[in-house]
Amino acid sequence: MKTALQIKIDLKTKPVGSLGKLEEIAHKIGLIQNTLSPELKNPTHLVFAGDHGLADEGVSLYPKEVTFEMVMNFLSGGAAINVFCRQHDIDLKVVDAGVDYDFSSKLNLIHAKIARGTKNILKEPAMSMAFCMRAINKGKEILNHEFEAGCNIISFGEMGIGNTSAASLLLHKYTGRSIEECTGRGTGHDDEGLKKKKAILKQASEKYDVSDPVEILATFGGFEIAMICGALLQAKKNGLIILVDGFITTAALLAAYQLDKLILDNCIFCHCSREKGHKYMLEYLGVEALVDLNMRLGEGTGAVVTYPLIKSAVLFLNEMASFEEAGVSSENSV
Amino acid sequence: MKTALQIKIDLKTKPVGSLGKLEEIAHKIGLIQNTLSPELKNPTHLVFAGDHGLADEGVSLYPKEVTFEMVMNFLSGGAAINVFCRQHDIDLKVVDAGVDYDFSSKLNLIHAKIARGTKNILKEPAMSMAFCMRAINKGKEILNHEFEAGCNIISFGEMGIGNTSAASLLLHKYTGRSIEECTGRGTGHDDEGLKKKKAILKQASEKYDVSDPVEILATFGGFEIAMICGALLQAKKNGLIILVDGFITTAALLAAYQLDKLILDNCIFCHCSREKGHKYMLEYLGVEALVDLNMRLGEGTGAVVTYPLIKSAVLFLNEMASFEEAGVSSENSV
Repeated sequence: MKTALQIKIDLKTKPVGSLGKLEEIAHKIGLIQNTLSPELKNPTHLVFAGDHGLADEGVSLYPKEVTFEMVMNFLSGGAAINVFCRQHDIDLKVVDAGVDYDFSSKLNLIHAKIARGTKNILKEPAMSMAFCMRAINKGKEILNHEFEAGCNIISFGEMGIGNTSAASLLLHKYTGRSIEECTGRGTGHDDEGLKKKKAILKQASEKYDVSDPVEILATFGGFEIAMICGALLQAKKNGLIILVDGFITTAALLAAYQLDKLILDNCIFCHCSREKGHKYMLEYLGVEALVDLNMRLGEGTGAVVTYPLIKSAVLFLNEMASFEEAGVSSENSV
Repeated sequence: MKTALQIKIDLKTKPVGSLGKLEEIAHKIGLIQNTLSPELKNPTHLVFAGDHGLADEGVSLYPKEVTFEMVMNFLSGGAAINVFCRQHDIDLKVVDAGVDYDFSSKLNLIHAKIARGTKNILKEPAMSMAFCMRAINKGKEILNHEFEAGCNIISFGEMGIGNTSAASLLLHKYTGRSIEECTGRGTGHDDEGLKKKKAILKQASEKYDVSDPVEILATFGGFEIAMICGALLQAKKNGLIILVDGFITTAALLAAYQLDKLILDNCIFCHCSREKGHKYMLEYLGVEALVDLNMRLGEGTGAVVTYPLIKSAVLFLNEMASFEEAGVSSENSV
């Protein structure tokens, strides 16, 4: 398949290799779907929301309430992710993984709350192992539901005040990089705020001696992160194309990667975040992002705005004429 | 307007600046259209095709016939640019600026042939000043036609075996960079081919002593390049958004820039080509491209595949809720 795909790509009416990264993506998607004529079906974007006990320590510029307020914004269609999903006809679903708010059961939300926010990790682990496993399994279940409805390409977003702190700690624990390197400005800390954030994360990091990947996730993660981790694992199992974007989602991928190294075969990395630690995550995984638009919004916006490029890759593979079909002379026939 | 636009952007429900380059684009488009609620209307992509006398010297890997063969491929919808324009509902028009072939008048082509290819510049200038002015004016006329039909966002592509050589010479003459720096692999030369190409361009460069911008264009350019130059000047005059992509189109922009420095106010640079000299062009103009997908196909594919990102910028500006509208607490209300 590998060779057959490359031949199909090289016979298209263009100089060999001239579609650059789009050719690599076309090739990868052909391998994921084991076909020369891949298709993108029911593209779906899942946004997982959860609160973080550590937010009480002031690790974010925004108050904790912003998590549920933004969930309401998602539901009424006014957030960035709504705009971009509408633009590309991507099905957007919002999951309450663990927001510290009682949502009405009538809301158009996937109700999967594990608890009303994680614990403050300066005092105790973010969640118990039982809660963590429950979140992972719930993520798998949600993904399965989309898969059974016909989705073969998935992306993830998140909302959770305080979750860049959780992601920084996961990066630190999974890769061994220092807190100094792993901690960024989140939603926009100044130097003072960043310094304080680093001190808090250092304190949290030193409090626990854990090495099991799932225990690390339970200790430092969040419900939305654990649920994304589960969804990622299931997406790989079901053979989906996974569009990866964002510091927090990539932290969830770091956890999933500890459990299934082959998950990278299904991942396309869309956007390199301005949040400092993201590039270290990509480096650790040995991958490069498709674009760098200097974004750091979260919600998975980087995956959704680059979705048309993924589609371009599939379309050129399926629709472009070959030299023979078009009656065009090929290279070196001078 | 500048401040009002920035305020509108900053009040959207997202951390300030977190949409990165999309915010810069939204801001720029707001300024071009002098409005807080810009619109993209009838996006149009014009592909100009022309032949080059220098192709006789073997500066390209492909035979000259590929120019008209590819025009036929455009007309039957099988080229990369067709696929991507269809994907994004962009109106694609193909212009015969000077192909060395007699197209049937029945073909769905803009018939604007100045001559059947330029002259071999190792022997004489590519075109006379009169032909060059005719090509520039024809480009203005074609652009005006699209503008009058309601188009407010335009991009350009080209097809012409041998035209990276013309573009390299224009880069060399307009910026003073050496032939060594300005000359790249085109459609895919190996080291040997590249060496030969450089020697030919050096010889051509040394043959003429010209400094007037239009005379440089006439001496070393191509009919498709001169026509794009005219279309660019008119697009600026008519206040269009200009999506710039590609080594050859940017060479045409270098010419236009000599005549109207303010043209940059209307330009969004979409993609940095793998063709070596393109980065020097961007550097000379003091601009950065939105993405780098390692492409070097020509046809303006880099502009068309990134069009959705431009649209995302306009959509977030128009459709995202503000903090107040969404009832979301803003920064520092911790």
